[in-house]
Amino acid sequence: MDIGSVNYLPYEDFVDVFGNVVEKCPLITAAVWSRRPFSSLADLEASINDFIDALPESGKEGILRVHPDLTGRDLQSGTLTRESREEQVQAGLDTLTTAEVSRMARLNTEYKDHFGFPFVICARMNNKATILRQLEERLRNERTIERACAIDEVKKICHLRLQGLVVPETSNKL
Amino acid sequence: MDIGSVNYLPYEDFVDVFGNVVEKCPLITAAVWSRRPFSSLADLEASINDFIDALPESGKEGILRVHPDLTGRDLQSGTLTRESREEQVQAGLDTLTTAEVSRMARLNTEYKDHFGFPFVICARMNNKATILRQLEERLRNERTIERACAIDEVKKICHLRLQGLVVPETSNKL
Repeated sequence: MDIGSVNYLPYEDFVDVFGNVVEKCPLITAAVWSRRPFSSLADLEASINDFIDALPESGKEGILRVHPDLTGRDLQSGTLTRESREEQVQAGLDTLTTAEVSRMARLNTEYKDHFGFPFVICARMNNKATILRQLEERLRNERTIERACAIDEVKKICHLRLQGLVVPETSNKL
Repeated sequence: MDIGSVNYLPYEDFVDVFGNVVEKCPLITAAVWSRRPFSSLADLEASINDFIDALPESGKEGILRVHPDLTGRDLQSGTLTRESREEQVQAGLDTLTTAEVSRMARLNTEYKDHFGFPFVICARMNNKATILRQLEERLRNERTIERACAIDEVKKICHLRLQGLVVPETSNKL
Protein backbone atom coordinates (compact mmCIF):
# COMPACT_ATOMS: atom_id res chain seq x y z
CA MET A 1 0.00 0.00 0.00
CA ASP A 2 1.30 3.50 -0.78
CA ILE A 3 0.65 6.60 1.29
CA GLY A 4 -1.98 7.86 -1.18
CA SER A 5 -4.05 4.72 -0.58
CA VAL A 6 -3.51 5.06 3.18
CA ASN A 7 -5.03 8.53 3.09
CA TYR A 8 -8.22 7.13 1.53
CA LEU A 9 -8.79 4.49 4.21
CA PRO A 10 -11.91 4.91 6.38
CA TYR A 11 -10.94 4.84 10.05
CA GLU A 12 -12.09 1.25 10.52
CA ASP A 13 -9.79 -0.03 7.77
CA PHE A 14 -6.98 2.24 8.97
CA VAL A 15 -7.25 0.71 12.46
CA ASP A 16 -7.47 -2.80 10.97
CA VAL A 17 -4.20 -2.25 9.09
CA PHE A 18 -2.19 -0.10 11.52
CA GLY A 19 -3.86 -0.85 14.88
CA ASN A 20 -0.88 -2.77 16.24
CA VAL A 21 2.07 -0.68 15.01
CA VAL A 22 2.26 0.30 18.67
CA GLU A 23 1.69 -3.01 20.46
CA LYS A 24 -1.88 -3.38 21.81
CA CYS A 25 -2.48 0.39 21.49
CA PRO A 26 -5.05 0.76 18.68
CA LEU A 27 -6.17 3.92 20.49
CA ILE A 28 -2.99 5.63 19.22
CA THR A 29 -3.54 4.56 15.61
CA ALA A 30 -7.20 5.55 15.81
CA ALA A 31 -6.27 8.96 17.22
CA VAL A 32 -3.68 9.63 14.53
CA TRP A 33 -6.26 9.04 11.77
CA SER A 34 -7.48 12.54 12.65
CA ARG A 35 -4.19 13.89 11.24
CA ARG A 36 -4.82 12.79 7.64
CA PRO A 37 -3.78 13.40 4.94
CA PHE A 38 -0.22 12.23 5.50
CA SER A 39 2.32 13.59 3.04
CA SER A 40 4.53 10.51 3.40
CA LEU A 41 5.18 7.42 5.48
CA ALA A 42 7.57 9.53 7.54
CA ASP A 43 4.74 12.00 8.19
CA LEU A 44 2.47 9.18 9.44
CA GLU A 45 5.27 7.90 11.67
CA ALA A 46 5.97 11.40 13.01
CA SER A 47 2.26 11.81 13.85
CA ILE A 48 2.35 8.61 15.90
CA ASN A 49 5.53 9.69 17.68
CA ASP A 50 4.10 13.15 18.38
CA PHE A 51 1.01 11.56 19.95
CA ILE A 52 3.16 9.34 22.18
CA ASP A 53 5.40 12.25 23.20
CA ALA A 54 2.37 14.34 24.19
CA LEU A 55 1.07 11.68 26.60
CA PRO A 56 1.64 12.20 30.31
CA GLU A 57 4.38 10.04 31.83
CA SER A 58 1.74 7.63 33.17
CA GLY A 59 0.46 7.20 29.59
CA LYS A 60 3.94 6.35 28.35
CA GLU A 61 4.24 3.78 31.14
CA GLY A 62 0.81 2.49 30.08
CA ILE A 63 2.16 1.84 26.58
CA LEU A 64 5.06 -0.12 28.05
CA ARG A 65 2.82 -2.11 30.42
CA VAL A 66 0.71 -3.59 27.60
CA HIS A 67 3.87 -4.99 25.97
CA PRO A 68 4.61 -8.69 26.55
CA ASP A 69 7.70 -9.93 28.36
CA LEU A 70 10.46 -11.09 26.04
CA THR A 71 10.44 -14.92 26.19
CA GLY A 72 7.62 -14.57 28.72
CA ARG A 73 4.34 -16.35 29.33
CA ASP A 74 2.83 -15.10 26.04
CA LEU A 75 5.61 -16.62 23.94
CA GLN A 76 5.35 -19.90 25.89
CA SER A 77 1.56 -20.08 25.67
CA GLY A 78 1.18 -18.83 22.10
CA THR A 79 -0.79 -15.71 23.05
CA LEU A 80 1.58 -13.14 21.58
CA THR A 81 0.27 -10.84 18.86
CA ARG A 82 1.37 -11.97 15.39
CA GLU A 83 3.81 -9.06 15.13
CA SER A 84 5.45 -9.74 18.51
CA ARG A 85 5.77 -13.45 17.84
CA GLU A 86 7.49 -12.85 14.50
CA GLU A 87 9.87 -10.34 16.05
CA GLN A 88 10.77 -12.53 19.02
CA VAL A 89 11.31 -15.54 16.73
CA GLN A 90 13.43 -13.46 14.34
CA ALA A 91 15.69 -12.52 17.28
CA GLY A 92 16.05 -16.21 18.15
CA LEU A 93 14.14 -15.90 21.40
CA ASP A 94 12.24 -19.13 20.75
CA THR A 95 15.50 -21.11 20.70
CA LEU A 96 16.98 -20.18 24.08
CA THR A 97 18.50 -22.88 26.21
CA THR A 98 16.78 -23.70 29.50
CA ALA A 99 19.52 -21.77 31.30
CA GLU A 100 18.99 -18.73 29.06
CA VAL A 101 15.21 -18.87 29.58
CA SER A 102 15.77 -18.94 33.36
CA ARG A 103 18.21 -16.04 33.20
CA MET A 104 15.84 -13.98 31.03
CA ALA A 105 12.91 -14.72 33.37
CA ARG A 106 14.93 -13.71 36.43
CA LEU A 107 16.12 -10.48 34.84
CA ASN A 108 12.64 -9.65 33.50
CA THR A 109 11.17 -10.07 36.98
CA GLU A 110 13.90 -7.96 38.54
CA TYR A 111 13.34 -5.26 35.91
CA LYS A 112 9.54 -5.24 36.38
CA ASP A 113 9.81 -5.15 40.16
CA HIS A 114 12.22 -2.23 39.89
CA PHE A 115 10.50 -0.09 37.23
CA GLY A 116 6.84 -1.18 37.27
CA PHE A 117 6.83 -1.86 33.52
CA PRO A 118 8.35 -4.60 31.36
CA PHE A 119 11.67 -4.50 29.52
CA VAL A 120 10.91 -3.38 25.95
CA ILE A 121 13.47 -3.60 23.18
CA CYS A 122 13.26 -3.71 19.40
CA ALA A 123 14.00 -7.42 19.01
CA ARG A 124 14.53 -7.18 15.24
CA MET A 125 17.44 -4.82 15.76
CA ASN A 126 19.02 -7.25 18.24
CA ASN A 127 19.77 -10.89 18.93
CA LYS A 128 19.57 -12.93 22.13
CA ALA A 129 23.08 -11.94 23.22
CA THR A 130 22.59 -8.19 22.81
CA ILE A 131 19.10 -8.39 24.33
CA LEU A 132 20.42 -10.10 27.48
CA ARG A 133 23.29 -7.64 27.73
CA GLN A 134 21.02 -4.60 27.35
CA LEU A 135 18.56 -5.99 29.86
CA GLU A 136 21.34 -6.21 32.45
CA GLU A 137 22.69 -2.78 31.59
CA ARG A 138 19.37 -0.95 31.47
CA LEU A 139 18.39 -2.38 34.86
CA ARG A 140 20.93 0.03 36.31
CA ASN A 141 19.38 3.11 34.66
CA GLU A 142 17.66 5.87 36.59
CA ARG A 143 13.89 5.52 36.20
CA THR A 144 13.26 8.62 34.04
CA ILE A 145 16.13 7.73 31.72
CA GLU A 146 14.95 4.15 31.42
CA ARG A 147 11.35 5.12 30.63
CA ALA A 148 12.60 7.36 27.81
CA CYS A 149 14.89 4.60 26.59
CA ALA A 150 12.02 2.09 26.52
CA ILE A 151 9.76 4.52 24.65
CA ASP A 152 12.52 4.98 22.05
CA GLU A 153 12.43 1.20 21.56
CA VAL A 154 8.64 1.34 21.11
CA LYS A 155 9.22 3.87 18.33
CA LYS A 156 11.83 1.66 16.65
CA ILE A 157 9.41 -1.29 16.73
CA CYS A 158 6.70 0.96 15.28
CA HIS A 159 9.09 2.17 12.55
CA LEU A 160 9.81 -1.36 11.36
CA ARG A 161 6.16 -2.43 11.55
CA LEU A 162 5.19 0.59 9.43
CA GLN A 163 7.93 -0.23 6.90
CA GLY A 164 6.30 -3.60 6.46
CA LEU A 165 2.90 -2.07 5.76
CA VAL A 166 3.50 0.98 3.58
CA VAL A 167 5.64 1.21 0.45
CA PRO A 168 8.23 3.96 1.06
CA GLU A 169 7.90 6.79 -1.46
CA THR A 170 10.50 6.93 -4.23
CA SER A 171 12.66 10.00 -4.34
CA ASN A 172 11.41 12.85 -6.53
CA LYS A 173 14.97 13.33 -7.72
CA LEU A 174 15.02 10.04 -9.61
CA MET B 1 -12.57 -8.14 44.72
CA ASP B 2 -12.40 -5.18 47.07
CA ILE B 3 -10.31 -2.06 46.54
CA GLY B 4 -7.69 -3.23 49.04
CA SER B 5 -7.03 -6.30 46.90
CA VAL B 6 -7.01 -4.15 43.77
CA ASN B 7 -4.20 -2.06 45.22
CA TYR B 8 -2.05 -5.16 45.66
CA LEU B 9 -2.35 -6.32 42.05
CA PRO B 10 0.86 -6.31 39.98
CA TYR B 11 0.33 -4.33 36.78
CA GLU B 12 -0.06 -7.46 34.66
CA ASP B 13 -2.94 -8.75 36.77
CA PHE B 14 -4.44 -5.25 37.00
CA VAL B 15 -4.47 -5.03 33.18
CA ASP B 16 -5.86 -8.57 32.92
CA VAL B 17 -8.79 -7.64 35.18
CA PHE B 18 -9.47 -4.01 34.17
CA GLY B 19 -7.93 -3.81 30.69
CA ASN B 20 -11.28 -3.51 28.92
CA VAL B 21 -13.21 -1.18 31.23
CA VAL B 22 -12.62 1.29 28.43
CA GLU B 23 -13.28 -0.78 25.32
CA LYS B 24 -10.07 -1.96 23.60
CA CYS B 25 -8.01 0.65 25.49
CA PRO B 26 -5.80 -1.35 27.88
CA LEU B 27 -3.31 1.52 27.56
CA ILE B 28 -5.61 3.62 29.77
CA THR B 29 -5.92 0.94 32.46
CA ALA B 30 -2.18 0.32 32.34
CA ALA B 31 -1.46 4.04 32.70
CA VAL B 32 -3.82 4.44 35.65
CA TRP B 33 -2.01 1.69 37.57
CA SER B 34 0.64 4.39 38.23
CA ARG B 35 -1.92 6.18 40.41
CA ARG B 36 -2.19 3.45 43.09
CA PRO B 37 -3.14 3.16 45.85
CA PHE B 38 -6.80 3.95 45.18
CA SER B 39 -8.78 4.99 48.24
CA SER B 40 -12.03 3.61 46.79
CA LEU B 41 -13.67 2.33 43.64
CA ALA B 42 -14.75 5.91 42.98
CA ASP B 43 -11.11 6.99 43.19
CA LEU B 44 -10.10 4.38 40.61
CA GLU B 45 -12.93 5.49 38.34
CA ALA B 46 -11.98 9.15 38.77
CA SER B 47 -8.37 8.32 37.84
CA ILE B 48 -9.56 6.72 34.60
CA ASN B 49 -11.83 9.68 33.81
CA ASP B 50 -9.03 12.15 34.56
CA PHE B 51 -6.74 10.31 32.16
CA ILE B 52 -9.38 10.42 29.42
CA ASP B 53 -10.09 14.11 30.02
CA ALA B 54 -6.38 14.98 29.76
CA LEU B 55 -6.05 13.39 26.31
CA PRO B 56 -5.99 15.67 23.28
CA GLU B 57 -9.21 15.76 21.25
CA SER B 58 -7.67 13.33 18.72
CA GLY B 59 -7.05 10.89 21.59
CA LYS B 60 -10.68 11.09 22.67
CA GLU B 61 -11.71 10.41 19.07
CA GLY B 62 -9.26 7.50 19.10
CA ILE B 63 -11.09 5.98 22.07
CA LEU B 64 -14.37 6.26 20.19
CA ARG B 65 -12.93 4.81 16.96
CA VAL B 66 -11.91 1.53 18.60
CA HIS B 67 -15.52 0.98 19.75
CA PRO B 68 -17.65 -1.41 17.68
CA ASP B 69 -20.78 -0.32 15.82
CA LEU B 70 -24.00 -1.14 17.64
CA THR B 71 -25.55 -4.13 15.82
CA GLY B 72 -22.59 -3.89 13.43
CA ARG B 73 -20.28 -6.38 11.76
CA ASP B 74 -18.73 -7.47 15.09
CA LEU B 75 -22.10 -8.47 16.57
CA GLN B 76 -23.01 -10.32 13.36
CA SER B 77 -19.67 -12.10 13.07
CA GLY B 78 -19.18 -12.87 16.76
CA THR B 79 -16.01 -10.77 17.09
CA LEU B 80 -17.24 -8.39 19.79
CA THR B 81 -15.38 -8.30 23.10
CA ARG B 82 -17.18 -10.29 25.81
CA GLU B 83 -18.22 -7.10 27.58
CA SER B 84 -19.66 -5.46 24.45
CA ARG B 85 -21.54 -8.59 23.44
CA GLU B 86 -23.20 -8.89 26.84
CA GLU B 87 -24.16 -5.22 26.82
CA GLN B 88 -25.59 -5.28 23.29
CA VAL B 89 -27.53 -8.47 24.05
CA GLN B 90 -28.86 -7.00 27.32
CA ALA B 91 -30.22 -4.02 25.35
CA GLY B 92 -31.98 -6.42 22.97
CA LEU B 93 -29.79 -5.51 20.02
CA ASP B 94 -29.48 -9.16 18.97
CA THR B 95 -33.23 -9.41 18.47
CA LEU B 96 -33.85 -6.56 16.02
CA THR B 97 -36.14 -7.13 13.06
CA THR B 98 -34.58 -7.02 9.61
CA ALA B 99 -36.08 -3.57 9.14
CA GLU B 100 -34.57 -2.37 12.43
CA VAL B 101 -31.16 -3.79 11.51
CA SER B 102 -31.31 -1.94 8.18
CA ARG B 103 -32.33 1.29 9.86
CA MET B 104 -29.57 1.00 12.47
CA ALA B 105 -26.98 0.24 9.76
CA ARG B 106 -28.10 3.24 7.69
CA LEU B 107 -27.98 5.59 10.67
CA ASN B 108 -24.62 4.21 11.87
CA THR B 109 -23.12 4.83 8.43
CA GLU B 110 -24.56 8.32 8.25
CA TYR B 111 -23.21 9.07 11.75
CA LYS B 112 -19.71 7.73 10.96
CA ASP B 113 -19.54 9.60 7.63
CA HIS B 114 -20.54 12.78 9.43
CA PHE B 115 -18.37 12.61 12.58
CA GLY B 116 -15.50 10.25 11.69
CA PHE B 117 -16.14 8.05 14.71
CA PRO B 118 -18.88 5.51 15.58
CA PHE B 119 -22.03 6.14 17.61
CA VAL B 120 -21.23 5.15 21.21
CA ILE B 121 -23.94 4.81 23.83
CA CYS B 122 -24.17 2.95 27.14
CA ALA B 123 -26.41 0.11 25.91
CA ARG B 124 -27.16 -1.15 29.42
CA MET B 125 -28.78 2.17 30.31
CA ASN B 126 -30.98 1.99 27.18
CA ASN B 127 -33.06 -0.28 25.01
CA LYS B 128 -33.39 -0.57 21.26
CA ALA B 129 -36.07 2.13 21.06
CA THR B 130 -34.13 4.75 23.05
CA ILE B 131 -30.90 3.82 21.24
CA LEU B 132 -32.45 4.40 17.82
CA ARG B 133 -34.03 7.65 18.97
CA GLN B 134 -30.78 8.97 20.43
CA LEU B 135 -28.84 7.95 17.34
CA GLU B 136 -31.19 10.06 15.21
CA GLU B 137 -31.10 12.99 17.63
CA ARG B 138 -27.34 13.01 18.21
CA LEU B 139 -26.70 12.97 14.46
CA ARG B 140 -27.87 16.58 14.50
CA ASN B 141 -25.38 17.67 17.19
CA GLU B 142 -22.50 20.00 16.50
CA ARG B 143 -19.25 18.00 16.32
CA THR B 144 -17.62 19.25 19.55
CA ILE B 145 -20.82 18.69 21.52
CA GLU B 146 -21.25 15.23 20.09
CA ARG B 147 -17.68 14.18 20.84
CA ALA B 148 -18.16 15.23 24.47
CA CYS B 149 -21.50 13.42 24.59
CA ALA B 150 -19.95 10.21 23.23
CA ILE B 151 -17.07 10.38 25.74
CA ASP B 152 -19.65 10.74 28.53
CA GLU B 153 -21.19 7.49 27.30
CA VAL B 154 -17.73 5.83 27.37
CA LYS B 155 -17.49 6.86 31.02
CA LYS B 156 -20.95 5.42 31.82
CA ILE B 157 -19.95 2.11 30.19
CA CYS B 158 -16.71 2.15 32.21
CA HIS B 159 -18.66 2.89 35.41
CA LEU B 160 -20.89 -0.17 34.97
CA ARG B 161 -18.00 -2.43 33.96
CA LEU B 162 -16.08 -1.36 37.10
CA GLN B 163 -19.15 -2.01 39.26
CA GLY B 164 -19.12 -5.57 37.99
CA LEU B 165 -15.47 -6.06 38.96
CA VAL B 166 -14.99 -4.34 42.32
CA VAL B 167 -17.15 -4.67 45.41
CA PRO B 168 -18.28 -1.14 46.37
CA GLU B 169 -17.08 -0.15 49.81
CA THR B 170 -19.65 -0.24 52.63
CA SER B 171 -20.37 3.01 54.39
CA ASN B 172 -18.32 3.68 57.54
CA LYS B 173 -21.46 5.03 59.18
CA LEU B 174 -23.10 1.64 59.38
